[in-house]
Amino acid sequence: MTNFTRTQGRAHDALRPVEIHRQYTLHAEGSVLIVFGDTRVLCTASVEEKVPPHKRGSGEGWVTAEYGMLPRATHTRGAREAAKGKQSGRTQEIQRLIGRSLRAVFDLKTLGERSILIDCDVLQADGGTRTAAITGAYVAAHDAVSWLLAQGLIAQSPIREAVAAVSVGIVDGTPLLDLEYVEDSACDTDMNVVMTAAGDFIEVQGTAEGQAFSRTEMNLLLDLATKGIAELTAMQRQALATLKAPSQGN
Amino acid sequence: MTNFTRTQGRAHDALRPVEIHRQYTLHAEGSVLIVFGDTRVLCTASVEEKVPPHKRGSGEGWVTAEYGMLPRATHTRGAREAAKGKQSGRTQEIQRLIGRSLRAVFDLKTLGERSILIDCDVLQADGGTRTAAITGAYVAAHDAVSWLLAQGLIAQSPIREAVAAVSVGIVDGTPLLDLEYVEDSACDTDMNVVMTAAGDFIEVQGTAEGQAFSRTEMNLLLDLATKGIAELTAMQRQALATLKAPSQGN
Amino acid sequence: MTNFTRTQGRAHDALRPVEIHRQYTLHAEGSVLIVFGDTRVLCTASVEEKVPPHKRGSGEGWVTAEYGMLPRATHTRGAREAAKGKQSGRTQEIQRLIGRSLRAVFDLKTLGERSILIDCDVLQADGGTRTAAITGAYVAAHDAVSWLLAQGLIAQSPIREAVAAVSVGIVDGTPLLDLEYVEDSACDTDMNVVMTAAGDFIEVQGTAEGQAFSRTEMNLLLDLATKGIAELTAMQRQALATLKAPSQGN
Amino acid sequence: MTNFTRTQGRAHDALRPVEIHRQYTLHAEGSVLIVFGDTRVLCTASVEEKVPPHKRGSGEGWVTAEYGMLPRATHTRGAREAAKGKQSGRTQEIQRLIGRSLRAVFDLKTLGERSILIDCDVLQADGGTRTAAITGAYVAAHDAVSWLLAQGLIAQSPIREAVAAVSVGIVDGTPLLDLEYVEDSACDTDMNVVMTAAGDFIEVQGTAEGQAFSRTEMNLLLDLATKGIAELTAMQRQALATLKAPSQGN
Amino acid sequence: MTNFTRTQGRAHDALRPVEIHRQYTLHAEGSVLIVFGDTRVLCTASVEEKVPPHKRGSGEGWVTAEYGMLPRATHTRGAREAAKGKQSGRTQEIQRLIGRSLRAVFDLKTLGERSILIDCDVLQADGGTRTAAITGAYVAAHDAVSWLLAQGLIAQSPIREAVAAVSVGIVDGTPLLDLEYVEDSACDTDMNVVMTAAGDFIEVQGTAEGQAFSRTEMNLLLDLATKGIAELTAMQRQALATLKAPSQGN
Amino acid sequence: MTNFTRTQGRAHDALRPVEIHRQYTLHAEGSVLIVFGDTRVLCTASVEEKVPPHKRGSGEGWVTAEYGMLPRATHTRGAREAAKGKQSGRTQEIQRLIGRSLRAVFDLKTLGERSILIDCDVLQADGGTRTAAITGAYVAAHDAVSWLLAQGLIAQSPIREAVAAVSVGIVDGTPLLDLEYVEDSACDTDMNVVMTAAGDFIEVQGTAEGQAFSRTEMNLLLDLATKGIAELTAMQRQALATLKAPSQGN
Repeated sequence: MTNFTRTQGRAHDALRPVEIHRQYTLHAEGSVLIVFGDTRVLCTASVEEKVPPHKRGSGEGWVTAEYGMLPRATHTRGAREAAKGKQSGRTQEIQRLIGRSLRAVFDLKTLGERSILIDCDVLQADGGTRTAAITGAYVAAHDAVSWLLAQGLIAQSPIREAVAAVSVGIVDGTPLLDLEYVEDSACDTDMNVVMTAAGDFIEVQGTAEGQAFSRTEMNLLLDLATKGIAELTAMQRQALATLKAPSQGN
Repeated sequence: MTNFTRTQGRAHDALRPVEIHRQYTLHAEGSVLIVFGDTRVLCTASVEEKVPPHKRGSGEGWVTAEYGMLPRATHTRGAREAAKGKQSGRTQEIQRLIGRSLRAVFDLKTLGERSILIDCDVLQADGGTRTAAITGAYVAAHDAVSWLLAQGLIAQSPIREAVAAVSVGIVDGTPLLDLEYVEDSACDTDMNVVMTAAGDFIEVQGTAEGQAFSRTEMNLLLDLATKGIAELTAMQRQALATLKAPSQGN
Repeated sequence: MTNFTRTQGRAHDALRPVEIHRQYTLHAEGSVLIVFGDTRVLCTASVEEKVPPHKRGSGEGWVTAEYGMLPRATHTRGAREAAKGKQSGRTQEIQRLIGRSLRAVFDLKTLGERSILIDCDVLQADGGTRTAAITGAYVAAHDAVSWLLAQGLIAQSPIREAVAAVSVGIVDGTPLLDLEYVEDSACDTDMNVVMTAAGDFIEVQGTAEGQAFSRTEMNLLLDLATKGIAELTAMQRQALATLKAPSQGN
Repeated sequence: MTNFTRTQGRAHDALRPVEIHRQYTLHAEGSVLIVFGDTRVLCTASVEEKVPPHKRGSGEGWVTAEYGMLPRATHTRGAREAAKGKQSGRTQEIQRLIGRSLRAVFDLKTLGERSILIDCDVLQADGGTRTAAITGAYVAAHDAVSWLLAQGLIAQSPIREAVAAVSVGIVDGTPLLDLEYVEDSACDTDMNVVMTAAGDFIEVQGTAEGQAFSRTEMNLLLDLATKGIAELTAMQRQALATLKAPSQGN
Repeated sequence: MTNFTRTQGRAHDALRPVEIHRQYTLHAEGSVLIVFGDTRVLCTASVEEKVPPHKRGSGEGWVTAEYGMLPRATHTRGAREAAKGKQSGRTQEIQRLIGRSLRAVFDLKTLGERSILIDCDVLQADGGTRTAAITGAYVAAHDAVSWLLAQGLIAQSPIREAVAAVSVGIVDGTPLLDLEYVEDSACDTDMNVVMTAAGDFIEVQGTAEGQAFSRTEMNLLLDLATKGIAELTAMQRQALATLKAPSQGN
Repeated sequence: MTNFTRTQGRAHDALRPVEIHRQYTLHAEGSVLIVFGDTRVLCTASVEEKVPPHKRGSGEGWVTAEYGMLPRATHTRGAREAAKGKQSGRTQEIQRLIGRSLRAVFDLKTLGERSILIDCDVLQADGGTRTAAITGAYVAAHDAVSWLLAQGLIAQSPIREAVAAVSVGIVDGTPLLDLEYVEDSACDTDMNVVMTAAGDFIEVQGTAEGQAFSRTEMNLLLDLATKGIAELTAMQRQALATLKAPSQGN
């Protein structure tokens, strides 16, 4: 490993400062602002008493997600997708990833024939928006479930375990945890890892940006991700332990 | 006037509590979170060194705006416009209004052949999102102009005067200033007024939702709006007077 | 007031010659060609025995409008919206305005669970297309209502009062009634006013194109509009008084 | 041949009453309202001093067409294509046919590197809208050419010969010329024929709606079409012989 | 007739080598690769137990077609229509033609309330893709009907007769049968003819690309087409006579 | 490991029969039909002497890919994306993956300022379409490079190494190589792995469909993928070793 120096002397295996603000907006059943360093994502969870066509009459519910980035969340203003009239391939990949990650920890039978829609909107971007989104979306979804329980709409929680996500990558030969934007741009290999609190994998998406990476490097990256996820799920637990009543929603 | 009672005992001619937070996000040349009671709109101003086709070679600049609402800014989740693949007629009306209102106070010749793009994204909605957006957009645009001056890209400010906006309406026969959502839904007449700090009109858009309104009622509404705008432009002045250096932008 | 001279020596407070041709095309329940000087708009009213989703089961009907401009209605050919694949923001604003204006004079309960769809298509444009459209749409809608009465589908008219619209503006300091295209292009302030025959307001949309306008100027403009609307509603009455049987429709 | 009886006792080989009104609207270089019985189509020809990409730098011009139908031109209101966001396959077929038919009689080299855009908008439909459109478009294009000559933009006419179109079909075994809507709906075979004044074919589009048609039937239909085209081109000649000065256009 | 020389010394009235491969892919109820020289089109017929809205409850079925061309089926890569977000006018014309041609030989009552969807995808193009598509689509549809009979879903075949298509044209004054790409590009007149095995016409679409064509030329072209169709329907019969069991489909 | 039995007694670590047919269609510079069991994908590589905007003037080339599936490539007919007017999120994910995988083995500087566009169209699907596409796309791209060398457009090959892809997954506790459709539908974990001939990783995309997977399971899957990739790159080498001259392209 070389001596790649991170912003503010961050250790190669350290997360950026993480903040999880629950009940960030008024109307949603779950509403979380999650902060990974300079990345800030607003994750809301909305309960709807209907399901998409492929689940109708199944007795099962559905959990899905949409992702967006405010035009000036980034250094250079990006075109507004609503004005362009379509979501980019990148946006669709990310929202499909968030949806799969959440569904992996939900028992859709226990949820009953209703939907939880997660909206992840990036207010400010500095790398890792999709991993912050997944990590925050879990907390928002948890609050929506608490709301369902408080309303008496469900009798037990459909959440089987916690899920969080983190990015890892190799920059100048150094494996790094939780890449910020300048690291992400410079990295040879970029991997997003979604794991359960128990340390099992839900998604692994690794890409060689520059040159192909070896099995050894992959193992180092998975080690780093495992460490990061353990810390993130601890922070989720702590945020949820606060004794706030569930959001009143609409 | 009847005895319509407002939330939290607000007087019929009182604004909701207003907050103007400058430098709310990192990257934009101007970035303002404006709060009108429970309505929160993030307004960013982005400088681009190019102009749309109809201004190319004219020596004049351009100021334009886009507007969006996060899906769960509202009581019931609204469909994401990027996913639907088009902006609603309402969204287009609002963003055209914001753009016209800002251009009305800009000298486009002095701005030079560059653009200021205003993005107004509603994080939380409780009525008056377009008037909050215009009021906040002015402050964001002012910060972008300060940035241009600080960069030496322009020698003098292209802003001729301040602009702010407020809604007024008649609910149960009572003229009210700065309608919140429940008032907006109940009102017979709804009017959005955009004015300069000097008290002149830039836009007046009045609509009879229920029954037509008389000339007398129109006069009462314009009086209320004039009062509200004077207070809002005073708050803009105060927010801009704070001695923060202009945002570093990208 | 300065000495701005209008085309063909028209007085500042005079309408252009107005013509209202009923039963202009064969198939529609109401079909009106309205002429404001060189502006010609074909307004058809179509009855459909169904309502949009938000009215289903309500017992109430719906009145809505669509607006279009033939590509060469204007001096320079405009792109065909059907070919571009979307309606401009301007088109949407106008058709929403026409729809609201008509609904303001309809009792939707009395109409019953059916729709009246107004199509306003500009054959030739010389300013004031939206105000001509509203004025003509009222007559077409009235003929559609007569058709419904003649068919025995409704027992009494759902129309509460007449509605008409006119533009006013300030050009070179002179307030003018019913702007034609060259005046509209030159004006500092442009206002579209929709009023009932009784002289109350349904919509007021005023915009400062150049510099902001004062309360005094607004009052002058509203006076002019009130005069113009009184003349237009008289002409509507006269056109409808002609003893033609209601159109046979399809 | 059976005894199929046509509306108003029209002979099987007779056209409906045809009217050709030149200079129907103000702004276009050519503007023609063509009437085939109850079918009315407004055809405008617009000159633009530019060509599409595939003709740039070729020294040749271009002639193209667009077609539309007002929503209530028909018995039952059709959805507005601009609102649906796309043109139907039928619309595209028709406008491609009109464009090819006109280009077939133009010498694009003589036209020079400029375009003539034909807009055919159906105000009222009763069968034969595409054949009326082609027949009227030729007259509008001829007026646009006269305007180009009058402006001194071209020295000689690029039009090589006249073009007109008519529909023919077999209804209950009877070959009929110039089908109106009820005949078109009932016919077994429907054929649109585009021919030059000299009697040669530009397009033949025959379709068996019910059962396949024989070579003998085809010959009868082509005979009828030849007769109809001869009459239509005579009417075009007569309409163009009127001594009106070319339209002033914009 | 001049001495236009065709590729590989083909006679002016000769088809290119034709191949018809049934059961070309696994899943479709009918799947045919049809080869006209260097033109190769994959035609699949899919049975669906539902009909479009205008046939619901009618007791009748529906037959329709879609057409596509792989981006590099042609000399120069064409843009992918799915990526552009819309089908070209040419694509829509062709798929409407294929659908009409097939429906002309189907008794929709006998088919029952179900659909046969034909997909014609051009793997390699060298002129005549639409005529090859129709000729192959008939065979695929026939296999789908055999499958329906074998499944006991219908008791008798809804196919009334065979249909095939061929192009003819005039190149340098010589009438040619079954144009390949270089001939198609050079031709003055291009005609696509769809006929039944009995020698009657279903569609005739003739276009003068260069100069108008005479009645005499039309007759020569129809003679050529009649010869070609007779050969093609013989090849279809032979292909279908092979004793393969109907495809197992899904 | 349990006793999951594969189709035709395939071993858990065996690929399906693979075929690689070069020069499958005429026009493309590279054209390969790749067969993985019942999955068949046509991969063409097209050379264009231009680059997308972000590469203009950079001296570097570009390699990109598009993916499509014929509507009846699957058991049940899927809607044609060109007709729906947009590519699904799945399609976009896959074509982005193919493009990244190819670019990872190209030296874009050596390619020079031109593009290679890969089109991967699935003629028949039985699982693993994206991995077959990548494996075939490499061979097609290699042929396009040979064509560029033969034309003297480049002096040396920009390809640094071979790339292939394979899917692996866990079904009923058994890790399997190269999943076919029924296995893919049943699996708990599904992973697509893209590797170089040297055995390094370009992409790893693993998804827990049912329950999360452990680090141990991940290691077993990566072992299987490594074995499969070694066999696939050997087959690519063999296919390319055949002494056919490069395709003549257009």
